[in-house]
Amino acid sequence: MTLQGTLLIGQQTVTGTQDEIHAINPATGDVLEPGYRGGSRSDVEQACKLADAAFDQYRETSLETRAHFLETIADEIEAIGADLTERGVAESGLPKARLEGERGRTCGQLRLFAAVVRAGEWLDVRHDPALPERQPMPRADLRQRHIPLGPVAVFGASNFPLAFSVAGGDTASALAAGCPVVVKGHSAHPGTSELVGRAIQRAVAKCELPEGVFSLLFGSGKEIGQALVADPRIKAVGFTGSRSGGTALMATAQARPEPIPVYAEMSSINPVFLMPEALKARGTAIAESFVASLNMGAGQFCTNPGLVVGLKGADLDAFVATAGDAVKASAAQTMLTPGIHEAYRSGVNELSGNACVNEVARGQTNDGPHSCQTALFTASAHDFLTQEALQSEIFGSASLVIECRDSDEMQRVAEQLEGQLTATLQLDDGDLDAAKRLMPALERRVGRIMANGWPTGVEVGHAMVHGGPYPATSDSRTTSVGSAAIYRFLRPVCYQDLPAGLLPEALRDSNPFNVSRLIDGKRES
Amino acid sequence: MTLQGTLLIGQQTVTGTQDEIHAINPATGDVLEPGYRGGSRSDVEQACKLADAAFDQYRETSLETRAHFLETIADEIEAIGADLTERGVAESGLPKARLEGERGRTCGQLRLFAAVVRAGEWLDVRHDPALPERQPMPRADLRQRHIPLGPVAVFGASNFPLAFSVAGGDTASALAAGCPVVVKGHSAHPGTSELVGRAIQRAVAKCELPEGVFSLLFGSGKEIGQALVADPRIKAVGFTGSRSGGTALMATAQARPEPIPVYAEMSSINPVFLMPEALKARGTAIAESFVASLNMGAGQFCTNPGLVVGLKGADLDAFVATAGDAVKASAAQTMLTPGIHEAYRSGVNELSGNACVNEVARGQTNDGPHSCQTALFTASAHDFLTQEALQSEIFGSASLVIECRDSDEMQRVAEQLEGQLTATLQLDDGDLDAAKRLMPALERRVGRIMANGWPTGVEVGHAMVHGGPYPATSDSRTTSVGSAAIYRFLRPVCYQDLPAGLLPEALRDSNPFNVSRLIDGKRES
Repeated sequence: MTLQGTLLIGQQTVTGTQDEIHAINPATGDVLEPGYRGGSRSDVEQACKLADAAFDQYRETSLETRAHFLETIADEIEAIGADLTERGVAESGLPKARLEGERGRTCGQLRLFAAVVRAGEWLDVRHDPALPERQPMPRADLRQRHIPLGPVAVFGASNFPLAFSVAGGDTASALAAGCPVVVKGHSAHPGTSELVGRAIQRAVAKCELPEGVFSLLFGSGKEIGQALVADPRIKAVGFTGSRSGGTALMATAQARPEPIPVYAEMSSINPVFLMPEALKARGTAIAESFVASLNMGAGQFCTNPGLVVGLKGADLDAFVATAGDAVKASAAQTMLTPGIHEAYRSGVNELSGNACVNEVARGQTNDGPHSCQTALFTASAHDFLTQEALQSEIFGSASLVIECRDSDEMQRVAEQLEGQLTATLQLDDGDLDAAKRLMPALERRVGRIMANGWPTGVEVGHAMVHGGPYPATSDSRTTSVGSAAIYRFLRPVCYQDLPAGLLPEALRDSNPFNVSRLIDGKRES
Repeated sequence: MTLQGTLLIGQQTVTGTQDEIHAINPATGDVLEPGYRGGSRSDVEQACKLADAAFDQYRETSLETRAHFLETIADEIEAIGADLTERGVAESGLPKARLEGERGRTCGQLRLFAAVVRAGEWLDVRHDPALPERQPMPRADLRQRHIPLGPVAVFGASNFPLAFSVAGGDTASALAAGCPVVVKGHSAHPGTSELVGRAIQRAVAKCELPEGVFSLLFGSGKEIGQALVADPRIKAVGFTGSRSGGTALMATAQARPEPIPVYAEMSSINPVFLMPEALKARGTAIAESFVASLNMGAGQFCTNPGLVVGLKGADLDAFVATAGDAVKASAAQTMLTPGIHEAYRSGVNELSGNACVNEVARGQTNDGPHSCQTALFTASAHDFLTQEALQSEIFGSASLVIECRDSDEMQRVAEQLEGQLTATLQLDDGDLDAAKRLMPALERRVGRIMANGWPTGVEVGHAMVHGGPYPATSDSRTTSVGSAAIYRFLRPVCYQDLPAGLLPEALRDSNPFNVSRLIDGKRES
């Protein structure tokens, strides 16, 4: 498949008019063809206009039609074959197996949302039947369903060229909800984006949906990205990236004449608490699996374990020594972009230069221009509690071990954490009481709490929460991974005493969609 | 019961230190005793500190304990007896029967939320069981529940001294969710607020809950209100009031180091569409019931029908004539506050002075210092479509009839509406096709669509939506009336592979709360 270097606006391919973007192969530094000229404001307007025009038809497609569309996108992505993973490898520096796995996850995610659409739980159908005889006032017939918010702007993420980009979790959940999507592709992987975008474009045509259901734009985040979020036809935003990028979109969304929700997944250091009994019993094994998690994807995961908290003493010293040895043996891995590599280097150097921080070990280097050298540091809890900078995320395989004098100090560390995606407890039976004491502080601050695992590797299921209090995300009330992500793009509408001919199909007495309903507040069996 | 004119901070009564607030009887202009000295920033801090300290214990109370607490508040409010409604009448100018009805609604609402807490749907329990044998990767055990956001700031509304004030819908739903509440009482009815606040204070003590579960502050919205929203321990805000008040709180909430959700219910003109067949068949009856709705509570409802849209012609002329006669016969009613009365007068005068607007009729006047004189106007759809000011809410019994040349122009009026709480269709069988054409535009813009009724009189049920796109509210994804209001104050947390001893009770295998669960995405029967 020959890449054309164009924007995709509805069913059209459009050559941009702004500065040209080229992907760079981070493993070699080579510039990749073709160039992608950025879109203009009028391209943004055209994409949004088409999305708005498609909305009313798309949002009332049958559950089956919409589910089939999501499945068709998955089929079309698979049909691209090795061209997709090869381009993904070239643009991201990630290994082929990872791209193949990510493609599986992306298509699995689309098919999961197809099943979610069919099940119809997201409609949240409620019916309070009329009570014409009620005293002192009769009750009207009241029915409720959820409808989609409107066209959604999605920003591709650098670290998931497939699973959180053009046809990733944000797009899948927004399309599942019934929202047309306008994607701003990430400048690091425009070719991968074009391939996937064309797959969606073909699925739109095959399913005979209105063309505005999907568009793909390229260009500067500051210009095209901001213009997209400011467009009055856009009603919600999905974003995965840096805190500065996310908060800039939040500000734009809030300054609009009509403010809109922004779902920005931004930064997290994912604290791991080493409880004393577990540390004593199996500190070596924990240290080894910790470094394996730290090195996954060159540490370029939102859930990378960037902070480890333990009680100062021989057991923690042994843990640090084992982890340090594993770090020293860690092979260098190519990072996603020159910018990310530079930010990693500078973050590690800053930590290393901090007088309160002790460098334990650095990993291997290689000749690659943008390789991540794993790094491990320690600092005292006292310093952590007084230096905000020690909570800053370093995107990549770097982690900081915090040594606490006692369990009270460990508790204070937990209570001073910013909002996080995850918290992990390494614990044995004897640690249960101490862990119980930590739980309330962790629940207040994180979206997912796990025991004896590692935060990397986020399951795409129904009970998953990939979210958490600010600044982990812009909106703690949701998740960006898993089937509940669909709720981000919905709102309730109540229909009072509507004649049957005007009622949406989902709300008819006969329950034609066969969905779970709340009748007078009781779950219908 | 003697009013003491104090703040209620946890179980303490505290005399404020700032300027004194006095309620004014709007029917007479009399100043009512006692005065309420406003709270200081340190009072705000103390209330928030107590709320934060109470949170972890309160949020883990059993469903039964929390439900019983809500019922105890209702009992304590009823036990105040006539003192409450008498003070409410004196402070609001509303009739006694209205205050009695509103007390019934307030206590009914608290008991409804008690039932909602017990049913546990709001926990949204999900469980994806472990799949240790899954290839290529095992699946961890994943469980999810919703937990409360944290302490909530609630702002009392002027127009519902009971049902949307100290123990109103926002407080009831926040307490039901497990959030401690700090109320900023409305300055128009401090005595009513103190009585209700003391009832909650007694319920907290009787149920042996931590005192910080509830506090009541008085003072300036600009100072105390803003300080409350800015306090880092506050995690969400409930507000019913003006657009300027709501947007000021939104700005403060967004500017915090940790932005928080604001649920502001602000303004709505609640368009009513007179479909041609219905207008022809029963225009007179519709006109009469329209003016009855317009006059309810002196028009001081968020759902007051402030805009009527019909097709120009003899049928609409007859409707306007009948409505005009009913307006002329409308008795003057006392408005809630001198400020609201002045805003009404000025809004009506502005409309009346608009060269494009035709004054149809004004209602009766009386000697009361703050009486609402009902008013009815007409304007052409052409002018409505070109003058944004004609969409401004006039809080009180004023309405504007828009005359459309044809159904296309009616469609354009619908498409140009700002976000609304409600839209109403007056329609007969022959209007079905025309109404169907309007539906998508209305669904995009409103929270509740009704047929052949009137928007005033909001049922507190499970299927109700009292919400809608901005500027009707700050967050269209929710409702502020009805049982679904509890979801405003919740967020999901996922528990991965947690030992049984650390799992929240709601998530245990045995389902001890006996709640509806989603197992592997399927609703458990």
